[in-house]
Amino acid sequence: MYQNLSKEELSALKTTLEKEYEALKSKGLKLDMSRGKPCSEQLDLSNAMMTYDLGNFKTDVGFDCRNYGALDGINEAKRLLMPMLGVEEECVIVGGNSSLQLMYDMLAKAMLLGVAENAKPWVKCEKIKFLCPSPGYDRHFAILDAFGIEMLPVAVNADGPDMDTVEKLAAEDESIKGIFCVPMYSNPDGFTYSDETVRRFASMKTAVSDFRILWDNAYCVHHLTDTPDTLLNIYEECKKAGTEDRVYIFVSTSKISFAGGGISGFASSPKNVDFIRKQLSIQTISFERINQLRHARFFKNMDGIAEHMKKHRDIIAPKFDAVNEMLDKKLTPNGLGEWNIPRGGYFISFNGLKGTAKRTVALCKEAGVVLTGAGATYPYGLDPDDKNIRIAPTFPPVDELNSAMEIFCASVKLASVEILLAN
Amino acid sequence: MYQNLSKEELSALKTTLEKEYEALKSKGLKLDMSRGKPCSEQLDLSNAMMTYDLGNFKTDVGFDCRNYGALDGINEAKRLLMPMLGVEEECVIVGGNSSLQLMYDMLAKAMLLGVAENAKPWVKCEKIKFLCPSPGYDRHFAILDAFGIEMLPVAVNADGPDMDTVEKLAAEDESIKGIFCVPMYSNPDGFTYSDETVRRFASMKTAVSDFRILWDNAYCVHHLTDTPDTLLNIYEECKKAGTEDRVYIFVSTSKISFAGGGISGFASSPKNVDFIRKQLSIQTISFERINQLRHARFFKNMDGIAEHMKKHRDIIAPKFDAVNEMLDKKLTPNGLGEWNIPRGGYFISFNGLKGTAKRTVALCKEAGVVLTGAGATYPYGLDPDDKNIRIAPTFPPVDELNSAMEIFCASVKLASVEILLAN
Repeated sequence: MYQNLSKEELSALKTTLEKEYEALKSKGLKLDMSRGKPCSEQLDLSNAMMTYDLGNFKTDVGFDCRNYGALDGINEAKRLLMPMLGVEEECVIVGGNSSLQLMYDMLAKAMLLGVAENAKPWVKCEKIKFLCPSPGYDRHFAILDAFGIEMLPVAVNADGPDMDTVEKLAAEDESIKGIFCVPMYSNPDGFTYSDETVRRFASMKTAVSDFRILWDNAYCVHHLTDTPDTLLNIYEECKKAGTEDRVYIFVSTSKISFAGGGISGFASSPKNVDFIRKQLSIQTISFERINQLRHARFFKNMDGIAEHMKKHRDIIAPKFDAVNEMLDKKLTPNGLGEWNIPRGGYFISFNGLKGTAKRTVALCKEAGVVLTGAGATYPYGLDPDDKNIRIAPTFPPVDELNSAMEIFCASVKLASVEILLAN
Repeated sequence: MYQNLSKEELSALKTTLEKEYEALKSKGLKLDMSRGKPCSEQLDLSNAMMTYDLGNFKTDVGFDCRNYGALDGINEAKRLLMPMLGVEEECVIVGGNSSLQLMYDMLAKAMLLGVAENAKPWVKCEKIKFLCPSPGYDRHFAILDAFGIEMLPVAVNADGPDMDTVEKLAAEDESIKGIFCVPMYSNPDGFTYSDETVRRFASMKTAVSDFRILWDNAYCVHHLTDTPDTLLNIYEECKKAGTEDRVYIFVSTSKISFAGGGISGFASSPKNVDFIRKQLSIQTISFERINQLRHARFFKNMDGIAEHMKKHRDIIAPKFDAVNEMLDKKLTPNGLGEWNIPRGGYFISFNGLKGTAKRTVALCKEAGVVLTGAGATYPYGLDPDDKNIRIAPTFPPVDELNSAMEIFCASVKLASVEILLAN
């Protein structure tokens, strides 16, 4: 345990660690682990889709996917995404290749036009705030920040966001218009919200009627174990509570088929979907539907997707194991950090000693390993403890990943000794 | 000439025309000519693209199009669209399947965030107006209307919008933030702006520095004759005048490859493109790039596109001829309308007697032929003379088109007699 060492011992250790770090650095590794990117082998799993026989490009109701029309998506694609969204077909809009873009767009529309017919556009409100379970997804925070929406961090536990805080703030503060959630295998912690958390989201009081939960179910089929987590269907719970206009649900196949080359799905109440559809008819001729047809024909249904996701797991689970083993071997004996062993999703969320995350990421970068910026997992990039680092193990081959993790562990150790010496 | 007939003669004629119309109506035709849709034969021209060998899905600089990245488009696609946009590669952003969506998005961004770093968001302005060359594209007007931007119609001549009016209003009125243009084979008139018009757009004074020309060059390669129109490069003219931040240029392959299944392009000054790129990095992971690669490999370059467009012309030029011949045969002897014979684009713009457009469209609809709504080609759907109808001849087979045009001419005649009797 580094924490138990004297200053003298730490100083001596520092010299040793610096040498180790320099030795690793001199290997000249170049590796970008900043984003949750699938590796080539994962992408290869869907290559066949690209030359898949689409016949006459017509859907089962005779719609020609090559021409204009089917504004809110073709039926086959709606049916493919329905089970992931957890709603009926009438509640589904199939989007383009990016669910993030759908989220941006929903917020842009809320800002400019409000969330319903005759609702007040959010830009007309003096102040807009959003609740941000943190650590969370940096790109959610970036969207809120771009629109000048104030972000209020909310702590996250293994069963989801701290609901006492969420309920209290949502009920009291009229400037709070919503919350961003990754409810299953959350980014970065890998937590899945408990049934209780989902029920509380559905039934909680909100100070404003246009409060929106952006439910980014990005990893709903991205299991890493034989005993997958399960997530309660929030739309069903909202219906029971009469709050079904509250939730915007998003999924995408970016990490099922192709990263940024898949299809995305949006679901909400029939009322919300009607309103969005009306706006979409002004915004675009249609989303791309040949790719929708391709996905529908290739995967067929949820069984097809589940089968396909097993192949992903076979490729990436060993990478998660490698990271875990390396962290365990190098850091546990020294008491230098905690991390989750995710049961799904794309990340390992590492918490080092307070005040070491920025320095660790900088050391890694200097040695050729680019990580997600320290603090990125918090609103405004401000990790109050400067301790959280998001590790994305999927992209590199295992041997490169091991090299990168050696550098990571060496950087954590060095940064830890430095901070212990400084305190 | 119906105009020379007495009331008695008109009454008698009306009875005859009503019989003719009823006879046509009883045939039970069902045809939707409301949008400029390519026909199946046109779409077939690009089918091969869908099974095109993309090798390892990598661009010529080794970027894997299946993965995340290339936010503003892959190089091959930029180079493919560059000549249509008339700019250098650094000024190009390749978008998704819909240039309309890019336009909506640019305006949404201008509204929420302004058009440049530290520029005033348009929502913060008390009043925003746009100049609208009319008749024009209904979907442009719909976007402006959705954002609450006041639309000021400007007359269109064979050489483009009435530039005296455009210059005067743009220079005087600080609430006017821009103009929407379809500068080549315009929708619906088929006019191409003269060099003089383009130069005046580039050099005119504007009351505000964030005035934007949305230059929707949708039909830049969509020629219907052996002697194509030419359009002066507005970006080059703007550079000469030092106004290159003024223009947003849009193109798409929707009517080159697949309707709503192609790729789109945006161009502007390096400063504007940098600003947009920064916002895009928040808005999306990337646009879809496998389809970009597919397009680049299939068309190769502008020669490839030009060759491909000749095949489109072979299919659709006879349809334009058929419409022209029918109108000429049935209406010219009676002095019942004027229309353009377009040298490119997708539409024939028909002007009937004042006060007959709505009635004509209603009669057509009753007899099974759906046309673009009368008035749609004007802001707020208000054609001051109720005379303009947009005819979209590309989708139906020639025999169906002839049947539809028979109904159209019979409807024009009947509506004309009715209005002459009423006056």
